[in-house]
Amino acid sequence: GDVGLFGGLFDLDKVGAGRDHVLVASADGVGTKLNVARMMGVYDSVGRDLVQHCIGDILVQGARPLFFMDYVGTGELDPEIISAVISGCADACADNGLALLGGETAEMPGVYQGKDFDLVGFIVGVVHRSKILDGSRIRPGQKLLGLPSSGLHTNGYSLARKIAFERLGHDVHDKPKALEGDSVGEALLRPHRSYLSVLWPLLEAGKIAGMAHITGGGLVENPPRALPGCHARIDRESWTVPPLFRWLCEAGEIEMDERYRVFNMGIGMVLAVDESDVASVRQALEAAGEPVFEIGDVADEEGETEWLR
Amino acid sequence: GDVGLFGGLFDLDKVGAGRDHVLVASADGVGTKLNVARMMGVYDSVGRDLVQHCIGDILVQGARPLFFMDYVGTGELDPEIISAVISGCADACADNGLALLGGETAEMPGVYQGKDFDLVGFIVGVVHRSKILDGSRIRPGQKLLGLPSSGLHTNGYSLARKIAFERLGHDVHDKPKALEGDSVGEALLRPHRSYLSVLWPLLEAGKIAGMAHITGGGLVENPPRALPGCHARIDRESWTVPPLFRWLCEAGEIEMDERYRVFNMGIGMVLAVDESDVASVRQALEAAGEPVFEIGDVADEEGETEWLR
Repeated sequence: GDVGLFGGLFDLDKVGAGRDHVLVASADGVGTKLNVARMMGVYDSVGRDLVQHCIGDILVQGARPLFFMDYVGTGELDPEIISAVISGCADACADNGLALLGGETAEMPGVYQGKDFDLVGFIVGVVHRSKILDGSRIRPGQKLLGLPSSGLHTNGYSLARKIAFERLGHDVHDKPKALEGDSVGEALLRPHRSYLSVLWPLLEAGKIAGMAHITGGGLVENPPRALPGCHARIDRESWTVPPLFRWLCEAGEIEMDERYRVFNMGIGMVLAVDESDVASVRQALEAAGEPVFEIGDVADEEGETEWLR
Repeated sequence: GDVGLFGGLFDLDKVGAGRDHVLVASADGVGTKLNVARMMGVYDSVGRDLVQHCIGDILVQGARPLFFMDYVGTGELDPEIISAVISGCADACADNGLALLGGETAEMPGVYQGKDFDLVGFIVGVVHRSKILDGSRIRPGQKLLGLPSSGLHTNGYSLARKIAFERLGHDVHDKPKALEGDSVGEALLRPHRSYLSVLWPLLEAGKIAGMAHITGGGLVENPPRALPGCHARIDRESWTVPPLFRWLCEAGEIEMDERYRVFNMGIGMVLAVDESDVASVRQALEAAGEPVFEIGDVADEEGETEWLR
């Protein structure tokens, strides 16, 4: 629509969506990852984080994203910061083929201190009624495949900052040996990756029975929501925990269960796949350059994630 | 959808929407009206404000709201505050017939101080392709009808607070004579009204050629966006400015043009109507108990609002 109008317009016909489709929407923020952005003075990556986090949240219901809107609240508008944030959102929308349908920026000195800001995203996607992933295809015996995260994504930052900056006393520019060449800031700020392009062909082919986006609550709290009537059994030694997580957890002396609740520990998306589809799913993902870990299976009875090891 | 899922689901078929429909979306906050809510310790009305503000923003494009999502960011979660805010949103959604499709609450002590919070809303509506109000039906000679606001709605609060609390030194509980029985807090906190129920029948009947929701920028900046190629001519003596605005503007010694830019001055929605439809539109609105003011007309040449008086 015209930029002078208040609302964003999205034409359902352009995407072939009609009465046999369901809209899927989600709202989220970036959380305290914003503090790391501020420490680094780098603001575009949190825009990308937000878009790609939101994409994952609706992808797990089988939905393809249609459009995104952003809100930035701040105490004192800094055009450079806002423009970096929005351009990060815009680039991520372009890369993932969704429309940035507009947004809102509000200056509220009584709520935010100075140039502090919060960043909120709203996403709307669409799924054909017959392809909604609502847990109804989940069966005991299905395999759980894990796809790598690119870092902390958008969760666990309060704890991570405490460990890196308070306990270890690091600066964002420090390069502890454990991070293998990354600075602390670079490792913490790495954007939440998007799983859309690698997973969309498999969703269209109906090869995925259910999915869990590993966000707040980690591998403990996210799989149960995707597996109604069942639970996940996960072998924590089935993938290599990336250096950033090992470094944080060891320095922070974080207990084992807590590690997998606060952080994604290297697994950003979990797929439940029928055993007969595992080989073809693995093959398709590996052909797309995506590493896949067979991290466990779906077991009878609803409940918490069960650790095999 | 199931509450355990991440995204909200909205069934297009339930509302008869298909490929001949366009989605209209908008994101907004409540702004510094939140500070008045905090001073009053009353939090449900800002939830209603947000929903009804968002409804107006997409109604001006001819769209009927389908669903709403909220985001609350805060430094320290106060369950009573959050629950009041969300119940205000929920009540307003119910009253206006749209779904509250979920939302997100984030605790971010580094961004917000204590129990301070920001409240953001996201709305999605739908309009039949043939009924989008995009300015193409605007013609010179159309009449402008104004519908009353219920108060400041969600704009002008920084100035209003400065006048009421700093310049006049009032407490929210004071009842200055000029407010005719209202306390300062009551008058300032009155929710942004919804124009959906009174205007929807007229929109369906195609009686409205264009609409301007009088939000930030007032009667100066909002009409031009709705009147491409034309401009509004408004007679400021065609309606009675309500006591709250008179009181604020006189005490604040606000210049005439500034008054109509910062505040809605008693007019919350402006309709552009063909001269031949004016009588039937007036009649329909008055039958619905809605006062209508004929505040001016649409004149040739794009530009700023022109004051007749």
